[in-house]
Amino acid sequence: MLAEISHIGRDPATHGYVRDAWSPADLELREWFRQETARRGLDLHEDRNGNLWAWWGDPEREPGVVTGSHLDSVRQGGAFDGPLGVASSFAALDLLRERAFTPAKPLGVACFTDEEGARFGVPCMGSRLLTGVLDPARAAALRDDEGDTLADVLARAGRDPLALGRDEETLRRVGVFVELHVEQGKGLVDLGAPVGVAAAIWPHGRWRFDFHGQANHAGTTRLADRDDPMLPYARTVLAARQAAERHGVLATFGKVRVSPNNANAVPGLVSAWLDARGAAEEPVRALVAELSELSGAEVSAESWTPVVTFEEGLRDRLAAVAGERPVPVLATGAGHDAGILAGAGVPAAMLFVRNPSGVSHSPAEHAEAADCEAGVHALANVLEDLCR
Amino acid sequence: MLAEISHIGRDPATHGYVRDAWSPADLELREWFRQETARRGLDLHEDRNGNLWAWWGDPEREPGVVTGSHLDSVRQGGAFDGPLGVASSFAALDLLRERAFTPAKPLGVACFTDEEGARFGVPCMGSRLLTGVLDPARAAALRDDEGDTLADVLARAGRDPLALGRDEETLRRVGVFVELHVEQGKGLVDLGAPVGVAAAIWPHGRWRFDFHGQANHAGTTRLADRDDPMLPYARTVLAARQAAERHGVLATFGKVRVSPNNANAVPGLVSAWLDARGAAEEPVRALVAELSELSGAEVSAESWTPVVTFEEGLRDRLAAVAGERPVPVLATGAGHDAGILAGAGVPAAMLFVRNPSGVSHSPAEHAEAADCEAGVHALANVLEDLCR
Repeated sequence: MLAEISHIGRDPATHGYVRDAWSPADLELREWFRQETARRGLDLHEDRNGNLWAWWGDPEREPGVVTGSHLDSVRQGGAFDGPLGVASSFAALDLLRERAFTPAKPLGVACFTDEEGARFGVPCMGSRLLTGVLDPARAAALRDDEGDTLADVLARAGRDPLALGRDEETLRRVGVFVELHVEQGKGLVDLGAPVGVAAAIWPHGRWRFDFHGQANHAGTTRLADRDDPMLPYARTVLAARQAAERHGVLATFGKVRVSPNNANAVPGLVSAWLDARGAAEEPVRALVAELSELSGAEVSAESWTPVVTFEEGLRDRLAAVAGERPVPVLATGAGHDAGILAGAGVPAAMLFVRNPSGVSHSPAEHAEAADCEAGVHALANVLEDLCR
Repeated sequence: MLAEISHIGRDPATHGYVRDAWSPADLELREWFRQETARRGLDLHEDRNGNLWAWWGDPEREPGVVTGSHLDSVRQGGAFDGPLGVASSFAALDLLRERAFTPAKPLGVACFTDEEGARFGVPCMGSRLLTGVLDPARAAALRDDEGDTLADVLARAGRDPLALGRDEETLRRVGVFVELHVEQGKGLVDLGAPVGVAAAIWPHGRWRFDFHGQANHAGTTRLADRDDPMLPYARTVLAARQAAERHGVLATFGKVRVSPNNANAVPGLVSAWLDARGAAEEPVRALVAELSELSGAEVSAESWTPVVTFEEGLRDRLAAVAGERPVPVLATGAGHDAGILAGAGVPAAMLFVRNPSGVSHSPAEHAEAADCEAGVHALANVLEDLCR
């Protein structure tokens, strides 16, 4: 099923995917979701925040069992992060029908909008808006690299930016949410298992560091007369790696914007984004405080997600029924819509599918066909169990 | 006269100018040049490489005395770098007419195309193509940030990309070239003089450093499993500053491109441009060799301009006639079209106008009105002397 969408948003030069929220590629993927929904005779619903829901049964009758993930991508990402969960959801539903299983509860497939935050900088935008943890006015005013606000972009896509925000009606329909996702590390490789269940999502956040200097001519400004912000940025990159090792956490400067970004100009401004995560909150906070101090930059927090521990009962139930034998339980450093829903009090859980190299957010991201198949079977088992 | 074009390509947020070659802003500036030419009854000629020439008298009769500069800008640049030289050329011509001076030789005002190289990465594109020091096939294949080649861009602007290249006919018309430019350092401030004459242009070049790594998820990839190219980039930035101090030269990393440039991804590639210059060639070469070695990056030379020492006779003649008293002679680290012409054997010289802060390639770039006036008088004196 992934082969049907493998051409959408693919960069022919790098084979990486660029599927920004509300871009032509994203709209094409949403259309594919609509077709898959129609082909199975499911009811399609797009909520006020742009998330898509395909229903088998009527969720107004009673809250349903929902599975799904997202279709957008980080820039130059892989084919699996997001789409594997959506495609596996439809495949698991097909499998239940093959088994002639009749769910006792409404069964839904969800596609969340802008999970990666590639365009507007805030990840899990769709689920954050749905649950109300992100202020809709703040979201509407976020700008992409072209300077367009989310409100502009939504209006152009025929959506109503004023409708954004916490959506009780849609939330009420979700009795439980299970997200299947390609693993983004080598945990399952080390454990020798094709499928696992999530224990927790590490606390994680994103901070913007603005290093201010004085733009000037690179060929005529004496070294002593320069106020070059590239130098403190470079020092902060190296300090971040050392501090991460010391605190036992992860710290990454993966996004940089230089102004004016001319080869023959000393920059006036270097803006860089720090991503920091760890098993516990305190060392992450300590690292950010340390780097803020040392950098001399203007630092602003762009997002912060506390630790999410998935409900133990649900987690153990998944681990018990997913495979023929109990499957392993493991934590992850990656944020997911399931984590946002769990944080907002919706019973939620996750299944992971083995990733041979552990590489993710890269065209090299991969999962073997047999493991994807195992994931679909695990998800079908879990849905069958939850829908009894 | 600069006030008439002060709105073109100006970023309302920063007050910096963005006037990429062949952009709508650049086309508007070219139209302004055409109007100034027509208003004075001069003959307009656009050569095969897109450079503009306004002639008073017929340069086919005998080689002329040419002045001028460029109208494009670095991104987020100031109002003076380039346009001051073009506007001062027209103003000097007006002054000669007020003086009822009749030039014994054809007098030309030139506007060179893409002096800054903001769009395609190669500075002095127009003069390099004209003199043949840049291969036209290589130039036509250069790409801008949108992936468009110069050939595409020229074709869209109604120009013939196949016509690029050394242009004997146009060159033959240039008997001598004098470029007036705002100073890009504080040499004239230190000397207390409003106007000066160029002695030499430092040897300078641009090198691209490609730091290759492995793109990966910032939240799930263990530090030990990472191959993060941002780290060697940061080390190279700091090493460049130290090496520049040690060698007594200038070194700048002012342009960076990160791929995929996502806050939640370890980069797969960091490309950065080193600008290096100095009074002599050897220490610049030594610095680049040292950084290439230490960086571990794939390094490619994008441009190299050897030292240009302006013809002494012409230089001294300018210094003698420009002001009431002889004006100072000083070197510069900035490249200019006059340097390219001089390197190709055309007698060339430059006048500098004082810049109070020394800041250039920035919206803060400035020259006082009285100093600009002094520049116009100096240029008129020089043209009068050369056209006798």
